[in-house]
Amino acid sequence: MSESVLVLGGGPAGLSAAQALVAAGQQVVLVDKADRLGGAPILSGYARLVPSGEWARDAIGGMVARVEASPTVRVVLGQKVTAFDGQPGAFTATLSSGERLKVGAAILCSGFTHFDSVNKPEWGFGTYPDVVTTTQVEQMMSSGKGVRCPSDGRKPKRVAILLCVGSRDRQIGREWCSKICCTVSANIAMEIREELPDCNVYVYYMDIRTYGLYEDKYYWESQELHKVKYIKARIAEVTSDGQRLIVKGEDTLVKRPITIPFDMVVHAIGMDPNLDNLEIAATFGIKLEKHGHIQRAPTYSAMCGTSRRGVFVAGAAIGPETIDDSIAQGQAAGFAAFGVLRGAMPVAAE
Amino acid sequence: MSESVLVLGGGPAGLSAAQALVAAGQQVVLVDKADRLGGAPILSGYARLVPSGEWARDAIGGMVARVEASPTVRVVLGQKVTAFDGQPGAFTATLSSGERLKVGAAILCSGFTHFDSVNKPEWGFGTYPDVVTTTQVEQMMSSGKGVRCPSDGRKPKRVAILLCVGSRDRQIGREWCSKICCTVSANIAMEIREELPDCNVYVYYMDIRTYGLYEDKYYWESQELHKVKYIKARIAEVTSDGQRLIVKGEDTLVKRPITIPFDMVVHAIGMDPNLDNLEIAATFGIKLEKHGHIQRAPTYSAMCGTSRRGVFVAGAAIGPETIDDSIAQGQAAGFAAFGVLRGAMPVAAE
Repeated sequence: MSESVLVLGGGPAGLSAAQALVAAGQQVVLVDKADRLGGAPILSGYARLVPSGEWARDAIGGMVARVEASPTVRVVLGQKVTAFDGQPGAFTATLSSGERLKVGAAILCSGFTHFDSVNKPEWGFGTYPDVVTTTQVEQMMSSGKGVRCPSDGRKPKRVAILLCVGSRDRQIGREWCSKICCTVSANIAMEIREELPDCNVYVYYMDIRTYGLYEDKYYWESQELHKVKYIKARIAEVTSDGQRLIVKGEDTLVKRPITIPFDMVVHAIGMDPNLDNLEIAATFGIKLEKHGHIQRAPTYSAMCGTSRRGVFVAGAAIGPETIDDSIAQGQAAGFAAFGVLRGAMPVAAE
Repeated sequence: MSESVLVLGGGPAGLSAAQALVAAGQQVVLVDKADRLGGAPILSGYARLVPSGEWARDAIGGMVARVEASPTVRVVLGQKVTAFDGQPGAFTATLSSGERLKVGAAILCSGFTHFDSVNKPEWGFGTYPDVVTTTQVEQMMSSGKGVRCPSDGRKPKRVAILLCVGSRDRQIGREWCSKICCTVSANIAMEIREELPDCNVYVYYMDIRTYGLYEDKYYWESQELHKVKYIKARIAEVTSDGQRLIVKGEDTLVKRPITIPFDMVVHAIGMDPNLDNLEIAATFGIKLEKHGHIQRAPTYSAMCGTSRRGVFVAGAAIGPETIDDSIAQGQAAGFAAFGVLRGAMPVAAE
């Protein structure tokens, strides 16, 4: 029986799975289609993470460094898995290079794809340069350049963050909630206020979902310590008067139309299923749920299962997920795969 | 070095940790102060779980049965841990019986305490028998007796579910969100509508937090398939006109006072930190966070750590948590503890 586990995807979940398997003395092959490890937090240049406040480059970069330094992990970059055959304990994975690997189990940590705001054209992204995404603001922060209007480099004095861009929106086929955008947006709002104390930040929301312990750390702190303003609203469109961006909609609480000027408008973009999921499902012989995420098996008898025995899943591949929960699921999936290698743990199947 | 791991608490997280350690060939001592395993879902008689739809007695009961049937798990019921000394790999745990156990690591899965609605007296619990909690409604369902008004056993025709009872409420010292009550309440509302098709169910909310994939499965389905009505409101008090309960407050969207009669009012009660946490913290020499939950170590380098090396934590002991995430964390903590036994995995400390 092979002692190796295939981990697909080198983001937080995949790094966690690899880290855990290494600690248990297992061999890991970590495959990522990108040319470096780290997943969205590294490839998209996230800034300070929720809820630790650590820089992504330190937190997730540290995970990358530990995995890369491990003699029992083989990292394969810039490649995909093109075929996956066999049985639990004795699978063969074929890479796009043609190389065939013997592995005992696989863990799919293939993550998500950021919503492309071009698909919400009435909110101005792609038309006005000062309409940006949360990811772009993270990049402004993590690059050290600070939050500036892309059109002319000025410091914005008024910023609007629009929640649920590509989430909870049936008109564009995204009826799910992306789970973490409310909290990330509250965090970004506080960071902008810290960097630019003269800048007013408004968050336009349907429901504020700073769930669990995020409630006081993000929702209350952002309002009380940082004077971020929250407005329950339906946004109709983002236009421009030639000088500034104009956000139009309805304030849902006072039932009045609003037409408000801003220097910068930030789309809090949601988490789409990974665009590769159809291909991944076909390759690994697993099922997707109705939105296109990887379908998870029932959790009570075996954690992190898919519809195929010996193939596990963790993190945002299952649906919108936080980094902390992705890390926990990665470790749990690592243990599940370890059980397959030992021939001991029940392996989930439909 | 001992090969045994102490797991404190036999709810979903603890059962998951035990299950995972067994699969890895480890010895487990599972200690619970209650006289049976299962934690809140079993002891409080939950009905169908979110999101699987399985009955708690089958889903969590199945976990209990598997753990109890395992020859490498010793279950100790009706006892607490009164002392915990030593170092990772060589701890000594003392039980309330006086027995001393040698264990290599410990996993705290000590869960939460349901909010006691008596602490929100203006909302009628304890005064009017037909004001009940979500837990009581779950018990009505899981007992097979169905949802009935406790005062006279009649089938309610109008039910109000009040969200955030003991959550997001600074007046009573609970500023956190309890994370899962919105989704559980939507689920309960659908179950009531299925059992009693003539009964109208209204949910009074501040923000609806059916996050992630719960959004369409619970929030939309409850409205569109089951005609559950959601009203954004601030509830002032629950009284009685002698015949029916009267919910008074303000509809936040139309800015109008509301005074509405109901047959039954359900408090969607939140998750308090376990009342035993101060004692647990003192016994195990670990820190609590400011609200009284067990403080989790940073997650990037080692999952599920506490402020003491070799002592791990999983599930609702950390803060309000779902059953699925508690199970994932339990398995992840199991792997972390396994790493301590192997002397391989980094163990978290402050």
